[in-house]
Amino acid sequence: MENTLQNKELTMESVITQSELLEHWQGHRKLTRRVIEAFPEKELFSFSVGGMRPFSELAMEMIKMAGPGIRGVLTGKWKQFGEVDSDYEKSEPKTKTEILELWDITTREIDEVWPQIPVQRFHEVEAAFGQYEGTMISTIFYLIDNEIHHRGQGYVYLRALGIEPPYFWER
Amino acid sequence: MENTLQNKELTMESVITQSELLEHWQGHRKLTRRVIEAFPEKELFSFSVGGMRPFSELAMEMIKMAGPGIRGVLTGKWKQFGEVDSDYEKSEPKTKTEILELWDITTREIDEVWPQIPVQRFHEVEAAFGQYEGTMISTIFYLIDNEIHHRGQGYVYLRALGIEPPYFWER
Repeated sequence: MENTLQNKELTMESVITQSELLEHWQGHRKLTRRVIEAFPEKELFSFSVGGMRPFSELAMEMIKMAGPGIRGVLTGKWKQFGEVDSDYEKSEPKTKTEILELWDITTREIDEVWPQIPVQRFHEVEAAFGQYEGTMISTIFYLIDNEIHHRGQGYVYLRALGIEPPYFWER
Repeated sequence: MENTLQNKELTMESVITQSELLEHWQGHRKLTRRVIEAFPEKELFSFSVGGMRPFSELAMEMIKMAGPGIRGVLTGKWKQFGEVDSDYEKSEPKTKTEILELWDITTREIDEVWPQIPVQRFHEVEAAFGQYEGTMISTIFYLIDNEIHHRGQGYVYLRALGIEPPYFWER
């Protein structure tokens, strides 16, 4: 009883709890998945504006950062960004379906790893991916914010293709 | 002494503290300010891709949400989004300099209001702007994420104009 109360108080001392932040991120990830789905197969891999990368490459950047990123936060073992350390990071998907499969693998991995991260760990400073020095919470926000940033660019691609993107507030 | 220790422990129980979250947001705001600056005067107000709004309008949306949003979080008094409640929200800037001035007013306002928000307040549920029901932390993340989203779109506009945007990780 005392413990429960204490936990409740601790929660109330946080602006956001660990599980709320997971829900926040996964909400964004659901929206990004819908943006991937909204692209026609061909344009997903070929269309862009201003010489930028097509959305397939932006989505693969998110996938290659999120899984290895969250594993690094948990374990403190970092590979260079893009360095291959599991089957799905090796693959270079050629279809929307393959990208969505990788997306879903990452979603499950984040759900699995997240509750194992001790809360103190978020404040530890380390070079993420062996090179980006910062607290683990700043690394996690980098993953989330980079996804929002590139997804926003995907919205422009979709508009330029005459396709209505999903509502931003739909999570 | 005991109090200090207790506070430290409470901090360590949070994934992010209230002051860290302010720093995070203001870091994003500095980058968005640089994106506004990067636009040529004329294109800031006229250029867009795919029939979207020019970046001046996206920046004004951010300005009209951030100040009133953070005041609403503090006071619980909400106006409809876009409803005029102070001089600077009335103004419809016609120059980049005017937008940057409004930007800086908002930056100072956030800095002023933020520390006055009791931490428990972040968990209270309320209809932000009289219509968007959610916890105050979800409202604040909406403000931050909406800024990142539209700023990402500004990056595409800049690229389409042949202008190199500021580095995403520069805050």
